[in-house]
Amino acid sequence: MTGTGQNALDRLSSLFSKLPGIGKKTASRLVYHVLDQSPSYALTLSAELANLHKAMRRCSRCGSFTETDPCHVCTDSGRDRFLLCIVERPQDVRIIDESREYRGIFHVLGGLIAPLEGIGPQEIDIERLPNRIREEGVREIILALNPTIEGDTTSLYIQRFLKERLGDSAPVITRLASGLPVGGDLEYADKLTLSRSFRGRVKI
Amino acid sequence: MTGTGQNALDRLSSLFSKLPGIGKKTASRLVYHVLDQSPSYALTLSAELANLHKAMRRCSRCGSFTETDPCHVCTDSGRDRFLLCIVERPQDVRIIDESREYRGIFHVLGGLIAPLEGIGPQEIDIERLPNRIREEGVREIILALNPTIEGDTTSLYIQRFLKERLGDSAPVITRLASGLPVGGDLEYADKLTLSRSFRGRVKI
Repeated sequence: MTGTGQNALDRLSSLFSKLPGIGKKTASRLVYHVLDQSPSYALTLSAELANLHKAMRRCSRCGSFTETDPCHVCTDSGRDRFLLCIVERPQDVRIIDESREYRGIFHVLGGLIAPLEGIGPQEIDIERLPNRIREEGVREIILALNPTIEGDTTSLYIQRFLKERLGDSAPVITRLASGLPVGGDLEYADKLTLSRSFRGRVKI
Repeated sequence: MTGTGQNALDRLSSLFSKLPGIGKKTASRLVYHVLDQSPSYALTLSAELANLHKAMRRCSRCGSFTETDPCHVCTDSGRDRFLLCIVERPQDVRIIDESREYRGIFHVLGGLIAPLEGIGPQEIDIERLPNRIREEGVREIILALNPTIEGDTTSLYIQRFLKERLGDSAPVITRLASGLPVGGDLEYADKLTLSRSFRGRVKI
């Protein structure tokens, strides 16, 4: 079981180590853990993995992962359809939805503009935004992209793009507040975050 | 895809979160990562998981996981067969073997004596040790158990048990040195480790 020659244990371990945040040691620990469990756990996990890509597709409206097209969020009549939140990745829809702070609809870009990596506006799902906005009668757009250079670049691009395409009928565009995290400490805040929290200061 | 109702993504996520050290957030991140990859990754992982318990069995000699019985280590003619290293778990065989410090054979106990958890000597693979030692002509036993209360209790038990069963023909029994980890700092060493490193001091 050791030394040369890959066995079933090694192969599974090397597959696990391809997952983000899982190194060689952790991967090996996971495989031994699976071996220690009854085979039913490995078999259930195996079946769900085999089923995953078949079961989950992209929602043709918002772009998030779903089993039914359109997705639950897009067909939810209890949502404010005038409010559209633009996010980078499908998982952002879930993160925002689970916070229960937002009850509008979503649009997944599938990436951020990153000129240095060769990702331009054509590589992400921006082109059909004006149509979506007109058809669904969106009145406010919330840009919920990560406060990074790529996120800010993309936000700026979308703002200009929508103004250009929709003119005066463009919806109000806002972005998430950026500043000190709740429970955070001034001492540990980086300069950019501190600078943003000053510029975005609110009256109390 | 959010809110009520479990879909394929949620089910896989909850299975991942049963693995050690993987919480709900990490599990969800892993599933989205798998979804982002080509389906072939999920399918290969699925196939290896389905195969794992079928392919890997316990070696009838040493007790570690193997595809062939006896395992590669037990049948390796280049090993010192007079030297037997006793470990708690199958993965310890691999850890020790990969250090390339030891070139003898192994015996996996499959647990440690832990009276508080109701695990007595009968629950672990001790009974067949005297026979193994006699048949394979073992001359030295290295107890490579974790330096914990359970590890020390088990080491002590095995020592007495072998003396009782084998009498004067019992092999020499040693245990791994315990003390400061290399690269460690006196300041961060706990009292027990410090005490052991004093009692086990070596002449330079």
